[in-house]
Amino acid sequence: MRVAVLRGIGEMVLEERPVPRPGPGEVLVRITAVGMCGSDVHYYEHGRLGDFVVEQPLVLGHEPAGEVVGLGSGVTRVGLGRRVSIEPGRPCFTCTQCLAGRHNLCPDMRFFATPPVDGALCEYVAVHEAFAHPVPDALSDDAAALLEPLSVGVWAARKGGVAPGSRVLVNGAGPIGLVAVQVAIACGAAEVVVADVNPVRLVLAGRLGATGSIDVTATPVGQTGYQPDVLLECSGNPQATRAALGGVAPGGRAVLVGSGSDDIPLPLSALQRREIELVGTFRYANTWPTAIALASSGRIDLDALVTGHFGLDDAELALTAAARDAGAVKAVVRP
Amino acid sequence: MRVAVLRGIGEMVLEERPVPRPGPGEVLVRITAVGMCGSDVHYYEHGRLGDFVVEQPLVLGHEPAGEVVGLGSGVTRVGLGRRVSIEPGRPCFTCTQCLAGRHNLCPDMRFFATPPVDGALCEYVAVHEAFAHPVPDALSDDAAALLEPLSVGVWAARKGGVAPGSRVLVNGAGPIGLVAVQVAIACGAAEVVVADVNPVRLVLAGRLGATGSIDVTATPVGQTGYQPDVLLECSGNPQATRAALGGVAPGGRAVLVGSGSDDIPLPLSALQRREIELVGTFRYANTWPTAIALASSGRIDLDALVTGHFGLDDAELALTAAARDAGAVKAVVRP
Amino acid sequence: MRVAVLRGIGEMVLEERPVPRPGPGEVLVRITAVGMCGSDVHYYEHGRLGDFVVEQPLVLGHEPAGEVVGLGSGVTRVGLGRRVSIEPGRPCFTCTQCLAGRHNLCPDMRFFATPPVDGALCEYVAVHEAFAHPVPDALSDDAAALLEPLSVGVWAARKGGVAPGSRVLVNGAGPIGLVAVQVAIACGAAEVVVADVNPVRLVLAGRLGATGSIDVTATPVGQTGYQPDVLLECSGNPQATRAALGGVAPGGRAVLVGSGSDDIPLPLSALQRREIELVGTFRYANTWPTAIALASSGRIDLDALVTGHFGLDDAELALTAAARDAGAVKAVVRP
Amino acid sequence: MRVAVLRGIGEMVLEERPVPRPGPGEVLVRITAVGMCGSDVHYYEHGRLGDFVVEQPLVLGHEPAGEVVGLGSGVTRVGLGRRVSIEPGRPCFTCTQCLAGRHNLCPDMRFFATPPVDGALCEYVAVHEAFAHPVPDALSDDAAALLEPLSVGVWAARKGGVAPGSRVLVNGAGPIGLVAVQVAIACGAAEVVVADVNPVRLVLAGRLGATGSIDVTATPVGQTGYQPDVLLECSGNPQATRAALGGVAPGGRAVLVGSGSDDIPLPLSALQRREIELVGTFRYANTWPTAIALASSGRIDLDALVTGHFGLDDAELALTAAARDAGAVKAVVRP
Repeated sequence: MRVAVLRGIGEMVLEERPVPRPGPGEVLVRITAVGMCGSDVHYYEHGRLGDFVVEQPLVLGHEPAGEVVGLGSGVTRVGLGRRVSIEPGRPCFTCTQCLAGRHNLCPDMRFFATPPVDGALCEYVAVHEAFAHPVPDALSDDAAALLEPLSVGVWAARKGGVAPGSRVLVNGAGPIGLVAVQVAIACGAAEVVVADVNPVRLVLAGRLGATGSIDVTATPVGQTGYQPDVLLECSGNPQATRAALGGVAPGGRAVLVGSGSDDIPLPLSALQRREIELVGTFRYANTWPTAIALASSGRIDLDALVTGHFGLDDAELALTAAARDAGAVKAVVRP
Repeated sequence: MRVAVLRGIGEMVLEERPVPRPGPGEVLVRITAVGMCGSDVHYYEHGRLGDFVVEQPLVLGHEPAGEVVGLGSGVTRVGLGRRVSIEPGRPCFTCTQCLAGRHNLCPDMRFFATPPVDGALCEYVAVHEAFAHPVPDALSDDAAALLEPLSVGVWAARKGGVAPGSRVLVNGAGPIGLVAVQVAIACGAAEVVVADVNPVRLVLAGRLGATGSIDVTATPVGQTGYQPDVLLECSGNPQATRAALGGVAPGGRAVLVGSGSDDIPLPLSALQRREIELVGTFRYANTWPTAIALASSGRIDLDALVTGHFGLDDAELALTAAARDAGAVKAVVRP
Repeated sequence: MRVAVLRGIGEMVLEERPVPRPGPGEVLVRITAVGMCGSDVHYYEHGRLGDFVVEQPLVLGHEPAGEVVGLGSGVTRVGLGRRVSIEPGRPCFTCTQCLAGRHNLCPDMRFFATPPVDGALCEYVAVHEAFAHPVPDALSDDAAALLEPLSVGVWAARKGGVAPGSRVLVNGAGPIGLVAVQVAIACGAAEVVVADVNPVRLVLAGRLGATGSIDVTATPVGQTGYQPDVLLECSGNPQATRAALGGVAPGGRAVLVGSGSDDIPLPLSALQRREIELVGTFRYANTWPTAIALASSGRIDLDALVTGHFGLDDAELALTAAARDAGAVKAVVRP
Repeated sequence: MRVAVLRGIGEMVLEERPVPRPGPGEVLVRITAVGMCGSDVHYYEHGRLGDFVVEQPLVLGHEPAGEVVGLGSGVTRVGLGRRVSIEPGRPCFTCTQCLAGRHNLCPDMRFFATPPVDGALCEYVAVHEAFAHPVPDALSDDAAALLEPLSVGVWAARKGGVAPGSRVLVNGAGPIGLVAVQVAIACGAAEVVVADVNPVRLVLAGRLGATGSIDVTATPVGQTGYQPDVLLECSGNPQATRAALGGVAPGGRAVLVGSGSDDIPLPLSALQRREIELVGTFRYANTWPTAIALASSGRIDLDALVTGHFGLDDAELALTAAARDAGAVKAVVRP
């Protein structure tokens, strides 16, 4: 099968590799769509992300969807021909964290497109049947792929306790911020204000349901007076994070979604006086059923995020789309 | 002022009484709309409800809205002329339950239209400013009044943990069931199936967002195979409650909303094997801000529930509307 | 190896069977102690328990401890020679319930000594390494075995939200009630009152930390005026359950631990008025680490529950100990 | 009555003032004991604490106990002669935060010994009856006073979710750290390790139940390898806080109890990868019943913290005790 391989910084090569064979409990999936994520771009541009360093050829892509074309031994839940969205990891299933329902914290997690584990920019992958989630016909291949970023948003809202009547600030209107806006609305949030520097994205956020927006090039988040109950921090920008934290209402929760690799000087006394809870998030757990329900019922529009389609041999163009076009939101590769 | 007084079973009389004077911290509200509730009807028809017995003349009505026309000493949060929805009770504010955020369980609660405390079927009431909730212009007087039953639905959904992706069964499509359907949808529920004997109400439930319905005259709830994560029991019917409980999914929650005065033989072993949580609810606490947000943002349509308007002198007709017309849902009295 | 087999009602036979071979991820454990449970006794006396019917020869015993004497392929967490307490089941690990941290609700759970799955009244069993929990030297073999009933108590307290300051009623002072008393004290409960008909057990409960007791032959639970925040129902007796439920304080929780196979007419309106949560429990999930910590730190005394030791060939005597002696609490078989 | 007044930095003066008269719902309490807190010392030494500045004469002391000697109108819950522990504040009782059960976040809270509200270093105070908590004879006057710092510890443990089996790190062994150690043990924590620079306090912590200690002059917290589930940060020291945060286990919670007025550069990415929740605390709410239960049942020893008694005219010596003697823990003034 054809595989797009990252051989070095800025160096993608198309290779031929054997089709994987599904092991016990695994299914073989023919990939139909793979969303490109900011972390893929980061590996492509910098060869690393935080502590993860690309030291050998790596296959990117962790937002895949496809069709089941092979079954390993013992598979009972998913049949041949089923369209599935792939949860892109393999935890051990039996450690303390897994048994507690937090497989995202499994120390033995093998997560797609995270060195040295290969991702899905290829024609076939084998995954555990529990992580090949059947999707209804109502969902396009693109939407099935984008259930992965939607899961990030679902997890963020869950961790933030977004509930009917919540006032929410979504900091950052990238792909994750844009799903977070939609999830917050789907949770019954009364207000969902989104902040970003990119006016195109703020407009899109409004179309997707945001009830207000802050153009932070004009007004810093900290100076708007808006006091959210829940902050969904999706910018990953240290200064913006600090500014947004300063406005969270007493008793509120602030969820760190965006990757913030740097240290931030936090005014802990302010967190104390208002009894704010600052919540780290890392991927997600048990989000696919919810994500499928929200997307297939039409409450969340994932297709609206897709601004470009690419073939496997154009994967490099997919990874550089955002750099070329400020209007680009989400590129999808169709192998 | 004019007051509609229940003097005995089936005996309503219009009286003149002095306008109340707002005490410290209280506001005087001129009533513009009062929803009629099943409990009002029950007092009218039977002179009692559970342990509460009408032993002296009683003013019914606990779903009031109005306009602030007088201020007691020390009032700071609500101004003259504000349109308000009234939370119809007065807890002590300082007992253990009140301090814990559960004023609905305050042993000294004085609740409207519950013997011997008078309700709002009159022209003016005095209430604590904390329980006179300002409403935006987007809400009609009717909707402002019906924030009370909406609060019951909000409380039920909160107690049931309805969340994005939940599969919900609403048992009973009376006024409370119809708000419960809408709240569940607003919480992001994936499926909201409603069960009732009344086909007119099932159709209305569908218009208000229910994703499925069960006509229990044709198919008992227990025989549909539907396994909800959350049961919102709004029928108050012992047999229907028992049947619905039998279908709740493992790990699910069942919320008792409807008044079920009789004993029900419950198969406790079935609750155990599936680790179901059976949750009693009694009125509500801290629901108005959420209810206002949901109704004023258009997610929940309260006006659609109103099937008749009546004057204060027609209060008796309001109380008997449901008995006369199977299509009647909610009667509103406008003093 | 030697195996004690239940061949019919009241008919235990010692057989020779091959020692099991540990599969991938499994360890072979030489059994050193097996506690006998009321459910074992029930199968022995009646050939069934609720919906589970003994239709073929069955090995009883689901409270085992032992020593690891063999390793299947891929085992990494437990070494040869380790003393372990066995969590007596094997869930699928990958279904929705397992992934959510509730493997006790796994529909494919294979639980020891539950028809048709054999238990541990034998010399060797093979179990998944994740369910062979190493124990410190501070714990005796008996205590290691009795971590299983302790887990039931930990789960009950967790489901009941027992916390510092809680007032708890433990209904029933059998082995489960006696661990529940100790767990509640370990959780910081302010009062732990225990109710039973057996004065010997009430005295033992007092020695184990109960702060009060109710001899229900003299005073029915419902007439003592005690209003617990949390009821841990460990009697399994329908009338006692109903009586105890009637006294739970407003906002309280009632946890059903004992098997109550019959229907109970419950006064649902009373549950509603006080907003009681009635919680079913089924076995436990993720309790061993807590149980080990509580028992090995000396906060909970499991050895005090053991009132008799028996060999594998005396298993029948172990199962009938309680019937012969009102002072018997827990029999342990040492193969 | 005599009142100890802080007139300026380091300047305490004894004045005569009229005995206060209890208003409606208030009781008059004759003070028998007042614990001195680090914040009292801070005001005495610096004339300010964070944003709170002493701009007019201030009465210190917010850990009072006493005897009820007068009743305002409408008091029903506390009688004359009752020994009480005083919860040292007066919230509005009716704002959104109060109604939600979080009166500690009430924007109109009038808290003792916080400018410009006077405290309890005097002979009589008037407080709302709801905040005059009767104590049993088992509690000494000192212990009744120290229910206030115990409440801080109860709140911290509650916010941290300390539960049976928890592994806890208490950072700082001052008075708050020493109650936090005891509360964690009372919650069933499996391990409670305490870290401090003061060896005398570490020894005391061990006597009070800590299962381990870290002398941070020898080994920085971050280098011990101990990974707590819950961090109770009671040092208020930015560097120590940062070091302790770095060791919290995946999925753990870190509770900020000590006042940390400075900004701390926090490695947010580390919080994210491990999904740590960082929780601010501010005073407490609804903790007295729990604190009374824990202290009066002997689980928590408050008298052991008292290292000096002083008269009202020696209040200055009480405030400087810790500066004079490294072994001083808690000074109590007895007016």
